[in-house]
Amino acid sequence: MQPDAISLVPPRGMRDFYPEDMGVRRRIFDAWRGAARSFGFVEYDACVVESLDLLKRKAGEEIGEQIYAFTDKSGRELALRPEMTPTLARMVAARQGSLSFPLKWTTIAQCFRYERMTRGRKREHYQWNLDIIGEASVLAEAEVIGAAYSALATLGLGPADVCTRFSSRAVLSDILRGMDIAPEHHQAVFLALDKRGKLPDEAIGDLLRGEGLSPAQVDRAFGILAIRTLDEASAVAGPQSAAVEDVRSFMAHLQAAGLSDAARFDLSVIRGLSYYTGIVFEGFDTAGSLRAVFGGGRYDDLLKTVGGRPATGVGLGFGDVVIAELLAERGLCQTGGEAAAIAVGYMSVNEQRAAARLAAALRKSGESVDLALSPERAKSFFSRAARNGSLRSVYVGPDDVSAGKCRIKDMRTRQETVAPLP
Amino acid sequence: MQPDAISLVPPRGMRDFYPEDMGVRRRIFDAWRGAARSFGFVEYDACVVESLDLLKRKAGEEIGEQIYAFTDKSGRELALRPEMTPTLARMVAARQGSLSFPLKWTTIAQCFRYERMTRGRKREHYQWNLDIIGEASVLAEAEVIGAAYSALATLGLGPADVCTRFSSRAVLSDILRGMDIAPEHHQAVFLALDKRGKLPDEAIGDLLRGEGLSPAQVDRAFGILAIRTLDEASAVAGPQSAAVEDVRSFMAHLQAAGLSDAARFDLSVIRGLSYYTGIVFEGFDTAGSLRAVFGGGRYDDLLKTVGGRPATGVGLGFGDVVIAELLAERGLCQTGGEAAAIAVGYMSVNEQRAAARLAAALRKSGESVDLALSPERAKSFFSRAARNGSLRSVYVGPDDVSAGKCRIKDMRTRQETVAPLP
Repeated sequence: MQPDAISLVPPRGMRDFYPEDMGVRRRIFDAWRGAARSFGFVEYDACVVESLDLLKRKAGEEIGEQIYAFTDKSGRELALRPEMTPTLARMVAARQGSLSFPLKWTTIAQCFRYERMTRGRKREHYQWNLDIIGEASVLAEAEVIGAAYSALATLGLGPADVCTRFSSRAVLSDILRGMDIAPEHHQAVFLALDKRGKLPDEAIGDLLRGEGLSPAQVDRAFGILAIRTLDEASAVAGPQSAAVEDVRSFMAHLQAAGLSDAARFDLSVIRGLSYYTGIVFEGFDTAGSLRAVFGGGRYDDLLKTVGGRPATGVGLGFGDVVIAELLAERGLCQTGGEAAAIAVGYMSVNEQRAAARLAAALRKSGESVDLALSPERAKSFFSRAARNGSLRSVYVGPDDVSAGKCRIKDMRTRQETVAPLP
Repeated sequence: MQPDAISLVPPRGMRDFYPEDMGVRRRIFDAWRGAARSFGFVEYDACVVESLDLLKRKAGEEIGEQIYAFTDKSGRELALRPEMTPTLARMVAARQGSLSFPLKWTTIAQCFRYERMTRGRKREHYQWNLDIIGEASVLAEAEVIGAAYSALATLGLGPADVCTRFSSRAVLSDILRGMDIAPEHHQAVFLALDKRGKLPDEAIGDLLRGEGLSPAQVDRAFGILAIRTLDEASAVAGPQSAAVEDVRSFMAHLQAAGLSDAARFDLSVIRGLSYYTGIVFEGFDTAGSLRAVFGGGRYDDLLKTVGGRPATGVGLGFGDVVIAELLAERGLCQTGGEAAAIAVGYMSVNEQRAAARLAAALRKSGESVDLALSPERAKSFFSRAARNGSLRSVYVGPDDVSAGKCRIKDMRTRQETVAPLP
């Protein structure tokens, strides 16, 4: 019986990584890990499957609808995480009494969201996370952004390629208070204003009126978007605003880190997730053609919502899809898999044993060796070694075995070096 | 409103990796990747979410019931892969015309199975896979086993700790043919005999009779388990058995690789998965207290079942759970996260800028630096640096800033080195 044809493509929105695709991915992951290590973050991880309860509890409104959820054979409601933050909160809260704060944790986590497929948006991606928990100083924000630029530098990119726009939810709150809009409405105003550009202003006005704001308050809320500088913001927030002072300190830290040119104040940066409470930021390609490269901000209530004690923290998320597109646009994408350094072939089964011993000796000395699994004619061996991208090659024939020597050929220069056959 | 208490543990059978757990995991993954590179394998990967159709098509009978399956919002039937092999078959079949064979691919893939929790068995694990596709020589089997022992050696283990038992489905088939049991029954006999020890012999006899074997044939099938050596097997399989010759070649290759002591012939090794057709093998701890450390074998029809052209291949799977237990038993488990090499602290905000410049300079020189995010008293800084496992520490005070120098303290020897403050 002939089986039905089976699809050879991965599920929609999910990616295969053939060996030649792994080069770019390995480069991005190595840059992330290197930057995290350089900035003193320690790595953690957790399973991509989480309890649905935890994820729903923590997710922003949009994410809630996009969760891949399922029930296991015991009736447990599980899901593929859409982001790492709820898991981080759970893990930290579980050991809040014994962990040493401030903690600086990093992970590269695969995350899933069911959403419409557009450029730079798949249904899964890998996200590099940096989190600092238990530290009030805005040097924390500057450090995670510094680490992000350190990773970008390793990839060949800098402030000329990726700029950071930042704002502060706390400053926004002080501004709203300055406009006589009560604190219980602030969160709703943030989320409504965050929809600007995605919804017509009329619809955003409806959202705000639905929240109970008066027509005058709605006008004032829209007025926020006309504020261009921190000084203008400070004028509305009032001279006592500690939030404005925090932003000034943050900017001084960025300047000290040589990142003044990379970052600018932009009150329209809000970020959709509801858990941010302080400075928020997003990194964009300067050409402005792609989605955000990274984003993050300060959260104060993250642990409290999973039953932990309150702790302030800062997080940054940096996905692999947009950065790969940016690298490709800039011609910085190294493609090609990692070939074995040395290919070893042989003419007949009589030389197989000698070739295997040679391979073992080379491997022992730290070389990566692709030992031919069957005898081959010299011509087909060398053309296969070239096709696979090996840097050097050795072909063992009967004369080599009797002489106890072999010739190691540099595939680029075609020069040969004679070496003993072990 | 107080939210309901939320569980702080991961879903049952799934693992959290706190920073101190990552040390062991990193060591295992590094040993796997290093051995794969040493043996000339190139890395590939694919999403953990696969189409249910593909997974069911390829899975052994037991696995089929253990798949975590779900439906996405478009009604697609998806699942978390229980093993990587179906995905490998799909990816290779999709490009069978353009890939260069034999191909040697490797991956570290998280895999999921819903099953009863026992020692060394969780509901997810990471599995290192090595596959060689398009090569008939049994040197392929010897190479994947050689790579597994290379990884074990990196971890401090050898043939005295892990022994390999191997058999051959092809030899078994020749034996069954020698016993007048028709080829169409062979697969069922393999799977029935594989249940030995899990089911009573009577139940296995019922399975065989259900398959249509006569009482005499059932007796003969059980007789297979009395065969102890390859010579005895050869006597039943007949002198023409190419399968027996393949096993002899395989043993010669193992001997050449210095692995004779590590491996022995054992006809009772069958392996549950239905796709094996040739040599099959399993690596066990020599104490015999744990589940298999690794396993694998030759398959011939893997690509055909997903619509590709036939291609013979060899695969090896090596999970992270059993090896971690074995390392722990042997006292070879390095625990503890990767701490920053240098902790940098400071007395007040006046020294913060100088400390940040020092951190930036050290990072630029390749050091891993944990910069304090707030001023601290010297005592609490040094005790935090010690608790976090930093190797060196620098505490910047006002005198250091005026002198333009700092003292780098070795946390173990307590010796100090004076360095310029940048």
